[in-house]
Amino acid sequence: FFDRRRHQLPAHLTHYIDNAVRQSYLRQFTPRDHALAVDGACIVPNLSTRTETSPSRSHKPTSSHPAEVILRENLHGGSCWTLPASHGQVGIRLPHVIHPSSVTIDHLPKEILQDIGQAPRRMRLWGTLDGDVNAQLYGEALDQLHEGPPITEGYTFIHLADFEYDVYADHPIQTFPVQAHVYEKRLHIGVFVIELLDNWGSQETCLYRLRIHGDLV
Amino acid sequence: FFDRRRHQLPAHLTHYIDNAVRQSYLRQFTPRDHALAVDGACIVPNLSTRTETSPSRSHKPTSSHPAEVILRENLHGGSCWTLPASHGQVGIRLPHVIHPSSVTIDHLPKEILQDIGQAPRRMRLWGTLDGDVNAQLYGEALDQLHEGPPITEGYTFIHLADFEYDVYADHPIQTFPVQAHVYEKRLHIGVFVIELLDNWGSQETCLYRLRIHGDLV
Amino acid sequence: FFDRRRHQLPAHLTHYIDNAVRQSYLRQFTPRDHALAVDGACIVPNLSTRTETSPSRSHKPTSSHPAEVILRENLHGGSCWTLPASHGQVGIRLPHVIHPSSVTIDHLPKEILQDIGQAPRRMRLWGTLDGDVNAQLYGEALDQLHEGPPITEGYTFIHLADFEYDVYADHPIQTFPVQAHVYEKRLHIGVFVIELLDNWGSQETCLYRLRIHGDLV
Repeated sequence: FFDRRRHQLPAHLTHYIDNAVRQSYLRQFTPRDHALAVDGACIVPNLSTRTETSPSRSHKPTSSHPAEVILRENLHGGSCWTLPASHGQVGIRLPHVIHPSSVTIDHLPKEILQDIGQAPRRMRLWGTLDGDVNAQLYGEALDQLHEGPPITEGYTFIHLADFEYDVYADHPIQTFPVQAHVYEKRLHIGVFVIELLDNWGSQETCLYRLRIHGDLV
Repeated sequence: FFDRRRHQLPAHLTHYIDNAVRQSYLRQFTPRDHALAVDGACIVPNLSTRTETSPSRSHKPTSSHPAEVILRENLHGGSCWTLPASHGQVGIRLPHVIHPSSVTIDHLPKEILQDIGQAPRRMRLWGTLDGDVNAQLYGEALDQLHEGPPITEGYTFIHLADFEYDVYADHPIQTFPVQAHVYEKRLHIGVFVIELLDNWGSQETCLYRLRIHGDLV
Repeated sequence: FFDRRRHQLPAHLTHYIDNAVRQSYLRQFTPRDHALAVDGACIVPNLSTRTETSPSRSHKPTSSHPAEVILRENLHGGSCWTLPASHGQVGIRLPHVIHPSSVTIDHLPKEILQDIGQAPRRMRLWGTLDGDVNAQLYGEALDQLHEGPPITEGYTFIHLADFEYDVYADHPIQTFPVQAHVYEKRLHIGVFVIELLDNWGSQETCLYRLRIHGDLV
């Protein structure tokens, strides 16, 4: 009985329905994430803003850095890394060197956020350019690089991407490209810094997950 | 061609479709889960019903308690903790003290359950009230607390919530609030017991995941 | 206002919509996966095709086998195990012995695959039959087993399933049954080999996840 009626739905309608379901399903997938802790990625404490953690939050049995939560699947009940400011940075060392192509920010959907203002807003991705290979690839232009995030620890940085996370967008997992002229240089980068420039209106900023995409060298 | 036709769908229809897709997407998210093993939560064996595990099931390389599976994302092929009865309890120590607000039970969707009777049904959540802070917060009323789960190990317990997991409901991830008058006391609780009172009709009870929500102290 | 209009949608239409959403939700669940590394399953290097890993890919802090990624939830940004050929094999030891019933292959959805040709195509599942229990169960027929994957390391193998992963199908998580006449023998199997026979048209084959289902002995 039902099957007969179903066939009466016009094709453009079932197409719209099936496509809406499919797109929602597909949005959970991203290209390979080279910044997963389970694969060996880790936080670089010296390149990260220091955040005081209250004693009651520090009973963790492991000695990993509090920001390490951003290097794992973390939206299904996990906790974010909380920066007690709207501006700061986190350093990430990948388990291998890549040609970076894009970066993804995961956050909770707006409908379930308790404080929408804590979402990160404008961000900047940096990569370190040390090593002989990059010196050759980048040539003399390397000496002209004087930029960098607030904490550089002596590394030479290249500016990879500027982007804005939109907490009001429908989908909370958002991917942003590395600048084309940098991607084309095929630099070898293993250490990154994500600089948080501001947030959506809070004194604290919450970062749930950062994914770094690119091609293996 | 298709896009023109799509615009012909009436707004109340596309709204219904998009909303159905969105609600299904949103239901996977819950507030922060303080009971994740990866964050340092663990089972308290002395507060948990002893379950004999057959030798063939105990080849695990780690020495963690079998019930630890309930402290991780566990629905995508993982195994439940099996209680060989319809009544029992599990003790959970969080990595930090919280003001508990609610509790979530995860189970597999009814369509793929082999034995619907193994789902937990009525449950009771307990919290331990030891420590000077709670003595002050709870005052003299503390001495009047004589309740507790079957195994107390000398802890003083407070009754946080009574609830029924509905295995026939559409969504298998169900959240239940802590009693309002307890939540308002802002107690500091770090050790919990979930007491399983009965199930949906089996001699065994399966628990897939327990999430504990609340505010950081 | 909207609710009134919603009730005007005919029942066969809302049924179609709700069912499409539900089926998409349900497809992520499979029966229990006995091949999860987190539960103690591991790769058997001696039963696995050797793959050279370039130095730049081997900076992992752990000493686990590269193929171990197939024993975890791995589609949300994880990396596949790459076989530099269209034919090869991987050995998997479960943490306990089971009566195998089916096997699941996870791959990324076709829409986001960079190279559809790297998906595995025809595969064969083998189980090892050593031990007194199987000798009794299988009886004299055991001596007639002369088959096996390319690398056997002296184990006696039984052929459990032949199947084809369809990279063009709508759903990328596909489950295949063990041959009925083998399942009915209730053999006790703890070590498996998945043999990759060919792929969808590439010189490399990518395997994201393998799940092994069955009943506990």
